[in-house]
Amino acid sequence: MRPPHLPLNRQRLIAPGPVEVEPQVLLELARPQPHHRSPEGIAALAEARAKLTALLGDPYDAVITTSSGTGAFEGALVSLTPEGAKVVNAQAGKFSERWGEMAQRLGYRTTLVAKPWGELLDPQEVADACRDAHTLLVTHSETSTGALHDLAAIAGAAKAQNPDLIVIADCITSYGVAELRPAEWGVDAVVSGSQKGTATPPGLGFVLFDPQVQERMVPATGRGFYLDLTRELRGQKAGNTPQTPAINLIVALSRALDRLLSVPREVLWAEKRRQADALVAAGEALGAPAWAARTSPAVAVLRPPAPLTGRQVAARLAEMGQRALPGQAPHEDTVFRVSTLGYADRYDALGIAGILEDAFASLGVPFTRGAAVSAAWRALGEG
Amino acid sequence: MRPPHLPLNRQRLIAPGPVEVEPQVLLELARPQPHHRSPEGIAALAEARAKLTALLGDPYDAVITTSSGTGAFEGALVSLTPEGAKVVNAQAGKFSERWGEMAQRLGYRTTLVAKPWGELLDPQEVADACRDAHTLLVTHSETSTGALHDLAAIAGAAKAQNPDLIVIADCITSYGVAELRPAEWGVDAVVSGSQKGTATPPGLGFVLFDPQVQERMVPATGRGFYLDLTRELRGQKAGNTPQTPAINLIVALSRALDRLLSVPREVLWAEKRRQADALVAAGEALGAPAWAARTSPAVAVLRPPAPLTGRQVAARLAEMGQRALPGQAPHEDTVFRVSTLGYADRYDALGIAGILEDAFASLGVPFTRGAAVSAAWRALGEG
Repeated sequence: MRPPHLPLNRQRLIAPGPVEVEPQVLLELARPQPHHRSPEGIAALAEARAKLTALLGDPYDAVITTSSGTGAFEGALVSLTPEGAKVVNAQAGKFSERWGEMAQRLGYRTTLVAKPWGELLDPQEVADACRDAHTLLVTHSETSTGALHDLAAIAGAAKAQNPDLIVIADCITSYGVAELRPAEWGVDAVVSGSQKGTATPPGLGFVLFDPQVQERMVPATGRGFYLDLTRELRGQKAGNTPQTPAINLIVALSRALDRLLSVPREVLWAEKRRQADALVAAGEALGAPAWAARTSPAVAVLRPPAPLTGRQVAARLAEMGQRALPGQAPHEDTVFRVSTLGYADRYDALGIAGILEDAFASLGVPFTRGAAVSAAWRALGEG
Repeated sequence: MRPPHLPLNRQRLIAPGPVEVEPQVLLELARPQPHHRSPEGIAALAEARAKLTALLGDPYDAVITTSSGTGAFEGALVSLTPEGAKVVNAQAGKFSERWGEMAQRLGYRTTLVAKPWGELLDPQEVADACRDAHTLLVTHSETSTGALHDLAAIAGAAKAQNPDLIVIADCITSYGVAELRPAEWGVDAVVSGSQKGTATPPGLGFVLFDPQVQERMVPATGRGFYLDLTRELRGQKAGNTPQTPAINLIVALSRALDRLLSVPREVLWAEKRRQADALVAAGEALGAPAWAARTSPAVAVLRPPAPLTGRQVAARLAEMGQRALPGQAPHEDTVFRVSTLGYADRYDALGIAGILEDAFASLGVPFTRGAAVSAAWRALGEG
């Protein structure tokens, strides 16, 4: 069957990253780049770092890496965790599993606290494993399952067991999107990347360090050079990156942050919450409920009704010009994933509900036409 | 009252031109321009002209002017109508009035056949006035009122009265959007502009000339030089423009036309018809019915419920980051105008229904929440 409306559809990135980017932000990439050692380049770095801190809302110091979020996470790990130390990795999905594999490969004594994909981490279970650990690696918004883990409860319970524990949180898809209060919650380092909630093209990672934890940073000698964030943090605080940064992306990021900083964090969080709730409501109306019990505002990870698979849904959306994602291996068929993480508003969320209706109808799924659209609009509320 | 969601909304052009433009089309504007006399420049002009003819669907010859649509219309008029000839202007809105004023200022003996704004032209009344006329100036989609005049009936009746009549149609917002069959209907010249249905930035006008009418073209000596399309048509058929064209825009236009030409005209027309019907259905659900009895697929021109005015609605939409339009003077307050004319799809039409609900709610208009969204989605049909 011919996918509906293909050539006349507007092409959209509705995946949980990379995301739609504001045209004005894209234009910054096309401007002549300042040299990163020039006054203009130094000012651009300082401005972007200050805005990253403002978006977080706590007085953490930002390091911008020229890497993906994974690179930034590795930098946080090796710069906060001495050689051979004990690391606990709480995992319940693809990305949290990655941090455990990373810690193992880097030679840390690694303890895994695992839940099946789609389930929520148990704060007490994680805390119990942390009693004699140096560092906890925990994921806030698990992009593979759509779960928003209770980072406040997990960090709180773990620190209650072990006040010296360093908590590094993968906030790659939650930063700027989900409620996040690291100082209050006891999160020492927050990691994210440019192509997620900050709605900038990929290429930059961020780590935001609590002021106190900075005293415990260790040179990453033996575990890395490029991603040694002790050097980066010192350099960036002095106005410079030790290595050449993707300066155009940094300028673009700064521009993208202006929009996010134009409202209080709580307004931003509530808005993204409603958008994701709308996608989940649309999914429910189509017989495709959310996988996770506690859903992330960054992404709706939905289970299509059997025998329809996640790959089939994502493929049909792609045929319609809409770039969503299936699940991640080995759960490609369990779920599909749609998102308004980037430069997208409540009216785009409503449009995605329409897109899902058309996709499901063309795949032969029975449902009442209009149900998903109406459910999404109700979930979006009156603003 | 604070307009809803302003800083977090995606900014949209939802006016009946200039319109949203596909990012790939915008990128063409940033590419190094070919010289218009180089083989590459000559090929670009030929390609764009051929695609304009393909979009029309009849073997008319296209002239591209570096001007707005008004300039192109003037070029058609002066190149098809000798000095002092009798011109009939059928008018029922701002744009059709402009053609009458133009003909008068250019010294033509001008007869006006006028209907009040919002009403439809009467084909027989127009035809009766054309008995001894040389040229009829008629507007297909009247962007100021949202009326789609019955161009087939008007041209047919006029030519039945006067087979030698030359019919120049303002198809500025109907070309590529509304059903248009000029050869069958007896329309000799079709005029449009780049910032409308072809979803390109402003700067180019188009005239498509019937092969037969070209034998009756007259040099515009005394009535114009730049807009003398006898020179332009001859030059462009030979591969060149006599004057310097906006070559980057021509290359961009060519790219924009690729998307429109990827489906049969009938599919394109039906899709834009449904989108406009959805906007009208949303308006009806909000107590803001269409002004015109026969609505244009290019624009929904809606009458807000008293005491709300068109200017108030357009101003609120602008505050929400959505660029629509009020009515045109002197009807600024009678109506407001929204459109999916450009690079916008059915999901964008659905989103605009949501935008209108939010705007009307914030303006204190009583209605059942969800009614406009549901009505729009129903009007969009199953594709």
